Formats: sequence, C-alpha cells, structure tokens
Amino acid sequence: MKIIDLRSDTVTVPSEEMQAAMARAEVGDDVYGEDPTVKELEQAATDLLGKEAALFVASGTMANQIALLAHTERGNEVIVDAESHIYYYEVGAAAMLGGVQLKPLEGLLSSEGPEVLRKAFRPPDIHFPITRLVCLENTFNRGGGTVISPAISKAIYDLAKERELTVHLDGARIFNAALALGCDVREFTRFCDSVMFSLSKGLGAPVGSLLAGSQQFIEKARRYRKALGGGWRQAGVLAAAGLVALKNIPHLAEDHANARYLAEGLAEIPGLQVDLSKVVTNIVVAKVVGRWTAAEFAEELARQGVKCNAWGPDTVRFVTHKDVSRADIETTLSIVKKILRL
Amino acid sequence: MKIIDLRSDTVTVPSEEMQAAMARAEVGDDVYGEDPTVKELEQAATDLLGKEAALFVASGTMANQIALLAHTERGNEVIVDAESHIYYYEVGAAAMLGGVQLKPLEGLLSSEGPEVLRKAFRPPDIHFPITRLVCLENTFNRGGGTVISPAISKAIYDLAKERELTVHLDGARIFNAALALGCDVREFTRFCDSVMFSLSKGLGAPVGSLLAGSQQFIEKARRYRKALGGGWRQAGVLAAAGLVALKNIPHLAEDHANARYLAEGLAEIPGLQVDLSKVVTNIVVAKVVGRWTAAEFAEELARQGVKCNAWGPDTVRFVTHKDVSRADIETTLSIVKKILRL
Amino acid sequence: MKIIDLRSDTVTVPSEEMQAAMARAEVGDDVYGEDPTVKELEQAATDLLGKEAALFVASGTMANQIALLAHTERGNEVIVDAESHIYYYEVGAAAMLGGVQLKPLEGLLSSEGPEVLRKAFRPPDIHFPITRLVCLENTFNRGGGTVISPAISKAIYDLAKERELTVHLDGARIFNAALALGCDVREFTRFCDSVMFSLSKGLGAPVGSLLAGSQQFIEKARRYRKALGGGWRQAGVLAAAGLVALKNIPHLAEDHANARYLAEGLAEIPGLQVDLSKVVTNIVVAKVVGRWTAAEFAEELARQGVKCNAWGPDTVRFVTHKDVSRADIETTLSIVKKILRL
Amino acid sequence: MKIIDLRSDTVTVPSEEMQAAMARAEVGDDVYGEDPTVKELEQAATDLLGKEAALFVASGTMANQIALLAHTERGNEVIVDAESHIYYYEVGAAAMLGGVQLKPLEGLLSSEGPEVLRKAFRPPDIHFPITRLVCLENTFNRGGGTVISPAISKAIYDLAKERELTVHLDGARIFNAALALGCDVREFTRFCDSVMFSLSKGLGAPVGSLLAGSQQFIEKARRYRKALGGGWRQAGVLAAAGLVALKNIPHLAEDHANARYLAEGLAEIPGLQVDLSKVVTNIVVAKVVGRWTAAEFAEELARQGVKCNAWGPDTVRFVTHKDVSRADIETTLSIVKKILRL
Ligand SMILES: [Ca+2]
Ligand SMILES: [Ca+2]
Ligand SMILES: [Ca+2]
Ligand SMILES: [Ca+2]
Ligand SMILES: [Ca+2]
Ligand SMILES: [Ca+2]
Repeated sequence: MKIIDLRSDTVTVPSEEMQAAMARAEVGDDVYGEDPTVKELEQAATDLLGKEAALFVASGTMANQIALLAHTERGNEVIVDAESHIYYYEVGAAAMLGGVQLKPLEGLLSSEGPEVLRKAFRPPDIHFPITRLVCLENTFNRGGGTVISPAISKAIYDLAKERELTVHLDGARIFNAALALGCDVREFTRFCDSVMFSLSKGLGAPVGSLLAGSQQFIEKARRYRKALGGGWRQAGVLAAAGLVALKNIPHLAEDHANARYLAEGLAEIPGLQVDLSKVVTNIVVAKVVGRWTAAEFAEELARQGVKCNAWGPDTVRFVTHKDVSRADIETTLSIVKKILRL
Repeated sequence: MKIIDLRSDTVTVPSEEMQAAMARAEVGDDVYGEDPTVKELEQAATDLLGKEAALFVASGTMANQIALLAHTERGNEVIVDAESHIYYYEVGAAAMLGGVQLKPLEGLLSSEGPEVLRKAFRPPDIHFPITRLVCLENTFNRGGGTVISPAISKAIYDLAKERELTVHLDGARIFNAALALGCDVREFTRFCDSVMFSLSKGLGAPVGSLLAGSQQFIEKARRYRKALGGGWRQAGVLAAAGLVALKNIPHLAEDHANARYLAEGLAEIPGLQVDLSKVVTNIVVAKVVGRWTAAEFAEELARQGVKCNAWGPDTVRFVTHKDVSRADIETTLSIVKKILRL
Repeated sequence: MKIIDLRSDTVTVPSEEMQAAMARAEVGDDVYGEDPTVKELEQAATDLLGKEAALFVASGTMANQIALLAHTERGNEVIVDAESHIYYYEVGAAAMLGGVQLKPLEGLLSSEGPEVLRKAFRPPDIHFPITRLVCLENTFNRGGGTVISPAISKAIYDLAKERELTVHLDGARIFNAALALGCDVREFTRFCDSVMFSLSKGLGAPVGSLLAGSQQFIEKARRYRKALGGGWRQAGVLAAAGLVALKNIPHLAEDHANARYLAEGLAEIPGLQVDLSKVVTNIVVAKVVGRWTAAEFAEELARQGVKCNAWGPDTVRFVTHKDVSRADIETTLSIVKKILRL
Repeated sequence: MKIIDLRSDTVTVPSEEMQAAMARAEVGDDVYGEDPTVKELEQAATDLLGKEAALFVASGTMANQIALLAHTERGNEVIVDAESHIYYYEVGAAAMLGGVQLKPLEGLLSSEGPEVLRKAFRPPDIHFPITRLVCLENTFNRGGGTVISPAISKAIYDLAKERELTVHLDGARIFNAALALGCDVREFTRFCDSVMFSLSKGLGAPVGSLLAGSQQFIEKARRYRKALGGGWRQAGVLAAAGLVALKNIPHLAEDHANARYLAEGLAEIPGLQVDLSKVVTNIVVAKVVGRWTAAEFAEELARQGVKCNAWGPDTVRFVTHKDVSRADIETTLSIVKKILRL
C-alpha cells in the first residue's frame, strides 16, 4: 500500500536534483566561515528577504530561539500569539534557553491583532518584566495556514515601534503567504526586524532554515548558534539542497491548489466540516462531527494509507506538499468517503 | 493632611507590640539554623497550615519563586491563571530564575477552574514542555480579593494529581480567604503541596512571608533561598514581628467589614460602579464610569489625601487594612463624593 | 558554659542601641520607594563609598548576585579568584540565576593579581564567551582576611578598563581592609564600578548588605532585586540597625587587635602553625600539625565552649568580632593549650 | 598554490563515496523518528560504543551540552579539566543553557587526575552547589591529543561512583585514543555513563556527532535536542555520510603516522621545540622559540600555503587528517625550514 502522508510538509524528501546538488557541493568549514555553498545560500536568502544578512541553521525552532536570544536579555517579556509555534511547539525553550517570559495573546495573529496588541501593553513598573519583542507567524500554522496581511503586519509593526519593541517574524511558510496574496515576500519582511523561513517544509530540502536580519543581529545570532551547538562544519552539502529548494518557491502554488481541492472535497462529505474561508495556503483543518473522535478518525485513515494529524479533540489537519499529487488527493477523498460511510 | 493609604495592605506599619517584640527578640545566625525566633515562627506556620515544615523568607515573590524552583526542572511548564500574581507581578522571574515557561489560563481561578484546567492538558509530545506544577492563588488579588472555595481547590487538586502534577498555593492572603468563609485555613492548604502566606500585608509585620510544605520540599527550598541571596543572619528580629502578626489573624475581620462598608458606599455614588458580589475580603475594585479615567481619578483622590491604585484603564482598587479605620473609610467616601460631584 | 563563637563575624547579634533604633524606626513601603530609614541608610552608604547610589539588600550573596546580573548578559564570562566567595560559597548562583560562566583564576587576589589577569585574557573568538566583568574581594576571606592594596586594585582595574571590562568589588569586609591600611575606604572603592559591603558581620547589624554604584547600575539592580524576591516592605526596621552599625566602623580595630593577639598566642602553641604575616584584619587561620585533623580539633574545641570553623583538612579559622572580648581570647588560648597538651 | 590545511581535522571534506551515499540515502522525518538512515547510524554507534542507545546531533558542542542538560539540574556543579573543550571552547553554554557551574580543575586529564579529583570534592554544605557530573575528554585536545588511559579513566570513574556522580566522556576523537593504545573503544566507554564522538573530524563526514548512553538518558537527550533546535528532518542524508565515516576508523592510523613524522621533522628544526612524548595521535604542538611569536609564525606559514593554529602566545598546533598526505607533510616541513632559516 502506498502511503499518502499529509501530516506535515516537513515530510518532503529531497528530489533527484537536490541529491545531485548535495553530491557535488563545494564545501568548507562553516564554523571558520569558509563554506562557499553556505555563503551562497545565505546571500540568496538575504536578497530574497530584503535584509542585510542571513544565517543557515538546523531548524525553524533553532532560528526562532536564536532570534529570541539575540533580541532580548534574560528576564524580558516576549509577546506571542497564544497559538503560535514559539509558545506551543518549542518545548518551553524561550524560558529555558533565554530566561524570557512569553506573553501569549489570543487573537494577535488575526485581523484584530493590532488592537489585541495595543491592549496588552503595560506601563513601566518594577513588578513587570521589560517587554522587548513581538513575534508574528506567517502563515499562521495553528490558525490553519492563514495569512496575516501586509496591512495588519504593518499595523502591528508600527505599534511595536512606537514602544521601541523589536519584531520577529516566524515565516516558516512565508513563501506560502506571499504566493497566497500574489505579492513579493518583502511585502511581509519589511514589517519585521528579523525573519526565519524553512527550507525543509514545502520547499523540500532535507534540513535547514534561514534566519535573516541586520548585520549586527546576524553577528549576535552566529554566536548564539554556536552556543546552542548549531555550528556545523561542511554544511554546504545541505546548503546545496537549500539552493535547489529556493527554486521550488513557485511550485508551492500546486500545493495550494491541492489543498483547496482537498478542502472542497472534504467539505462535501457528511461527517466533516471545513471552514473553506480559511483554506488559503497548503493547510486544511477539518472538524470531525460524526461518531468518531479526531484521534479515531486519523487512526482509521492511517490504517488505510492516509496519514494526517489529530489536531484537536475533534479536528484533523492535512498539509499538502510536493510529494503528494492531485491523484493522491483524489485517493484521499475516496478513502475518507469510504470510512465515513461506514 | 492625614493620608489615608488604600493602595495595598502592604503599606501597614509595625504596631508598638511588634516594635517591642523586635527589640527584645532572641536571635542567632539563621544561615547556621540557629535563630530561635525564626525557628519558633517557622514552627507556628507549620502548625497553622498543617504542613511538615516551613521557611521564613523576605517576600511573597521570593516564596513563590522558591516554590517554582523546588517543584520544577528547567524547561518545565507551570500552569497559572492569566491574572495571577506569579505571571503578572513577578518580573518574569519564573523564566529568568528557573527556566520554566508559564502557561497562563483565563478563568483558572474561577468556578470554572477545573474545566479550564482539564481542557488545557496536552498529551505527551516531544514538542511540548513537560508540565509539572499548577499554581493557585487565594484570595485572588486581580480577581478583586475573591475566594477560591475549598471545593474548587479540591477539584483542581484532584485533576492535578491524576496527572501527577504538583500544586502550589500562593496564599499571600490565605487567612483572609479562611475568614471570609469562616473555615480553618487548612480547608485550603490540604489541597496543595506547598503554600505561601504573607506576614507583611494585612497581618502588619514589616517584612516577610512563610513557605510551607513537606520536609523534603523545605530542604530544597532552603538551598534555593540561599542561591537567591535570601539567606539572612539574625532574622529573628523580623520573625519576632511575624509572631505578633500571627496574633492579628482574627482582626482581619475588621478589614473585611471596612471593605464592605466602603464598597457599599462607593456603589451608591454616581460615576462609580462596584460589583458587590465580589467584595468578600479586604479588596474593593470600582469602575470609574464618568468623564474621569481611572488614572485621573486616582490622582485627584491622592491630591485630597486618599491613595488608591489605578488598576486598569477604568478601574481603581482600594485595599483595607489595620492602619485604616472606619472613620478613614467615611472620610474616603465623602472625598470621593466631593470629587465626583465636581 | 559560656560559648565563645569564633566561627564567623556573621554571628554578631544586635546591640541594645540597635534594638532601640529598630523599635523606633520610621518606616514606609520600600517597594514603593517610601521607606525613609532605608533611604537614609542608602544615602549614608553612597556617601561613605563615594558612589552615586546604593541599594539595601538581604545578604552579601544577594548583593553580589545582583551585581553579576546587572553587569552581564546571559552567556558572558566573569573573572573571579578561584577561592573567591562568589565562586566558592554562592551555591552556583551565577550560572543558575544569570547564565554566566565563572572563570576562576588562582592568584587573582594576590600581589601577582594583575599579571594573573593579563595572562587570562583571550582574544575574541566565536568559541569563547564574551568577558564582561572582573570581581575583586577585599578583605579576601579564603585568603585569611588579607587585604588587596589600593595599588594592586588599581592595576587590576586599569587592566580591566583597557579591555572595557567592568569591575565589581565584593567588599563584605571592606571597612576591615581600610582600617588595616589606615586609609579611607574610597581608596579601594574608586577602583571598581560597583561595591558591596555587609552590615551583619563585624558591624553587628542583624541582616543586610549594601550594594553601590552608578545611578543607572542601581536602577537595574533594583529591578533584579525584585525578581530575586528581595523587594522588602517596611525594611526600615533593619535599616535602622544598619545606621547604627555604620557607627561601629572604628570599633573594628578592636577585632583586629584581638585577632592579632589570638594569632600570636596560637603561634606559640606546639601543634599549631600560624602565618602571622597574613593576620592583618579579624581572621586567623591556623594549621593543625599534630595528631588531630582540623575537624577533630574543632570538635574538641567546641566541646569545651569555643567554636571555630574547620577550614580545610588541616586548617581551622577563627574570626574575631564585637561579641568576643579580649578575655574571651585569653580563655580560648588556654583551652587550646589544654587540648593540645593532651 | 595548493593549501595544506593543518588547522584542525574538522576541515576534512566528504569523499566521493560519501557524496554518493548522501545522494542515494533513504530518508524520512527524524523528528517523527522515521529516518531509516539516521536509525541505522544510531544503531551502529550504539554497537560500537557498547551503550544502550545513541542520538545523532549537529555538532560535538551540541552533544556535550545535551549531555550536561540531561545529567544535571539547574544550579548543579560539573567538574571539568581547566583546559577541557567544554570549559574552554563552548561559549559559556553550560551556564547559559543549563544554569550549571563548571568547576575547572588543573590536571584532571593527566595521570594525576584521580588525585586531583579526590582533592576537589567538598562535603555537603548549603553554600556549595550540588556536584552531579564529572567530564572526561579523550583524546585531550588542549593536552596535545594525549590519551587518558583506561586505567586512569577507571580510577576517575570509580571515584565518581563512590560519590554517586555521573561521568560523561567528550570522546570527539575517542577512536584516535583507541587506535593509539591499540585497544577497543569500549575499553574507554565502559568507564562513563555517556559518551560523544565526532563524525566530522578525522572520520571525514561533513556534519554530525553521536551521543550515546542509557535508553533513559537518550530519551531525555532527544527532548533537550529538540529544545536546542537540533531536531532535524531528513537528516538521513548526513547520516549516510556518517555511516561511510565509520568505515574510516582504521584509516586514522595514517593520520597518527603523519603526525609523528611531522613532529619528528619539526623537532629537528632550530627555532622549534616539540615534546615528542606527547605526540601520540594526530595532533602536534610545537613551541616557537626564536624571534617569531606564534601568531607571526602561523601567519608567515599561511602566506606560503600551510595553515596551522596559533595555539598560545608561543605555541602552534598542527592536526593531521585524511585530506593531508605524507607528501603534504614533507612540503610543510620544507616550508617551515625555509621560514625559520630566514
Ligand atoms: Ca522535508
Ligand atoms: Ca480568552
Ligand atoms: Ca506591611
Ligand atoms: Ca550579625
Ligand atoms: Ca594552578
Ligand atoms: Ca569535516
């Protein structure tokens, strides 16, 4: 049985073109700053994002945590969405590594975001930690792959700047956001001081993320990367795959089309509910309304060759990506129908 | 002009009886465990709270932070109310000192608390920090001095125990809670593994809080107190005041009566709104509904000799205590009336 | 049996004058910055030390740790002597609270100190933490109460400044140092950016230390004190004792004379060796050369009413202070003679 | 001009066999535990080292820091050699990430190591951090690539176990140690609770190290790896190179022979001194005794195509590895001769 893996776009595997690129990559010792392929990738990211400098790191979590470390001092407070990756999925690292307190706000990553942020500010007081940083996430994973528009991003950024706060953008899937709005990624990245994006999700590289910002920020980031054990030697083999991955950016459009197709198909199946207005990138969240719990439904699907994530007590998440074809989506839909007809 | 200070019960000053007790206190070096008055106070707290052992520390924040340190490992998650003192007023110390991530929940310290807690639990996953501790707060300061009933405390405690979680009670004003319900303080402390209460608030001691729990917990706590710089030498001079303060517990009833009297008076004044159902201890929160902001109103009050706290954009907080008499409350009411009539 | 306690000068108990001062102290809420007696003490310390501002804290360890926090960022390196209090006796707090790595050097607190420091500097490198701070200690407790001269202090300070490093002085017993050299304490404090001294050792106050430095430093320190739980309310009762303690500074001379007398007496007793050249303040370290281990000797002494500290496998430490008279020293000497004659 | 790079064995680049292996590697999502090549590599390491489980991580520093995190609690003390990699080259990470204080001892990694360790133990005391871990390093980099014998390793291990301490072995070059003594690597790894070795040094893989220990330890390690951002997705591409690297172990003998040849050659050149008794693996430390400083000498060498590390004010370090041939060594020797004849 062929497995159709819709748990996450992280499951993408390297293409033949990437494999060939890795095999022939020119490499050097990146801790000494001597890996030409890493440098080429960092320069490419710098250009794409419109920032001064970039750093190639092992994961999105590492990029986010380095950004937190480089933007804050111990004891600071960092404002995040209550469903953000940094708060929800990063193992409490912000507190453990950086000694910073996250302040999770409901609705920060929504059209009400600027108002939510404005209300959360507190005046200076010796009882309160000093706030230093606001984190955005785009697309918003737990929001269902939704896009925070440049206008909202700007409004939050402007509010932050009024308070002399720094803004970091967890842009793990920022190219999906740009593609969804048909705009340049810099329409988002101009409203942040630092940004991270992932190579190993929809773009298909095996390992790696890029963190970008000012020259000074990246110098601090490089030192923190070393302290986390993220200094890697001949990382050019991975950077070579990353350079190929950047060429995949336009192809994310197929993932979006497949997600839409899947969402519309699922929406028509009794026993499932899908808020189609939220399906704008490569993520589909469906509510299981029948006699199955989300976990049971996901388990049954897996038994029949389709993997998804039990996302909440009664929701499942499907993520489309380059290793899932339109035919796979059709197979998925027919398997779902079969199960729910039971 | 006599100042009537209703900002907080922390402003209480030592009585003559306390001053005399401090002057004649028998002391020793408490770092060596040799201060007899400190030992007497710790034993008294142990007995009052029904715990195995207690530790005398410099502040409620120190007691809470030591409890967090002693109950957790770095990287753990601690569940608190979104308006709890530990999250709101402790300078981000949980992250900075302990490397632990707070998970603030709205409504934990309400009658819905057990349900709120139950929904917040997440299954084990490598992306999630390990949860170790749930913190209660009683009375609930930012709730307006409200009391979490023993039944709710028990329900939360039982849920925590099902998950093998530890429960810490920030009982800075736990004697106010007991007095409000007319029950023994142990009706609350039996539903926690550790508890802190403050001597320097309504009880009137100049400095100090007590942290209590199991023998093993207090041994760990003593070591963490030393690391925080909280080991103090002839602390018996303060413990002597603390022993007098414990005798003040029954007198908290007057503060409650004064708060009630103040609340009812304020509720009748046009331009203010008071939820009388929440005024059950020594805290009164009033909403300023007229043309004043809370800050402006508090400032004008202060100019006329009455200090209160601007508590939110449109709310002020008054706290009654032993250094404020019924006559002071009456003066306060007439000053408020005069101001709002302007 | 009267106990003669020579373990440490921390065991001093408040005098009657202090007790009276504590009883009549005018107090306020120091967290709100409203305790007049605390302010008076902080101003007195500021003047004595020739710094811009001071902060009253619960212990020498708290003062040192706050200084480390306020001078460094997480991940920095702090240079200390390998026998310094900060490295040896502070429960690993520098790493735990501040995330800073101590770099202990042998001989920093010696006449070779400047050379030791010069050799320890490393060039910038991504593998090395950034060094921010050098810590002095005067008198040097584990050195035997020795004094680091102003000339050596200046040489270390100048080297530090060449590297843009900050210098903190753990001056728990800095008045003993000044008295030993017959100079003003500012001859030492001018060669540091921050300084701490203890009120509860030779000066006889029950609790407290003072941390002094620039206005900006003390503002940061105040915030860190709060995060450590060191914000205390009506601390004026302790500050009142501290103000009396400052008047005791000249009386430390008697402790020095008693230490000298004790040292010379011990040096003549077979079975003990004392390096008299090192006995310049109120500390006497004696080597036990006979059949006793230091621990056994200390235990036998204690049985006969004299307490000292087993300091190393074959050394004991005696500390003189205001609660030990010349007659007590003579009693001590005769008891030691009796024991070693056994 | 061909560059002969003797700065470190980290500069090794992947062989063609490795490149091919990376290109055809079967991969999966390692965060989900589904990468077959990573699993194969972890199993191979487990077997080689005689431990229960292993974890593939991005660097030796990451492996060491994870070991520290998994073996300790915040505030603990960790005993290391004063010249160990963990203390000297890891950016202060132990304090920053783990809140643990390093206790650097001179001579721990020498034949006197057990005695040095025994003397460093302190009795329990509230002023002292709790000691939890002793770290060995083998071969000892800053010792000049020297080998800590199994007998010394055992003596240290036994002393640690008497005190209920855990032992971690930084075995970045442990296969060099085994080869030097002609013994199985398990003669070393049996005297530790956890061990790390590097794939990207002499073994020639582009990126990665392995951390091994008990099943329970590796479970904790996996969680800490995630928190550091070290969870990587299709890491099998790197693991494939790692599996090839393991086949290179026997070839380290050539590096040792080349180092010996280089050392003997350098020893005969006036202006250089080499302690040949210490040249037992692939590291050669030479003292520059003439008019050059080490930095000047290294710079001049680099100008002529040979890179080495200025190691101290008057010492340089050369490291042999697979990408340096016997002919390269001969070229190096003649260039050195030419320079020093100048
Ligand atoms: Ca992937
Ligand atoms: Ca809400
Ligand atoms: Ca008070
Ligand atoms: Ca004292
Ligand atoms: Ca030495
Ligand atoms: Ca390599």
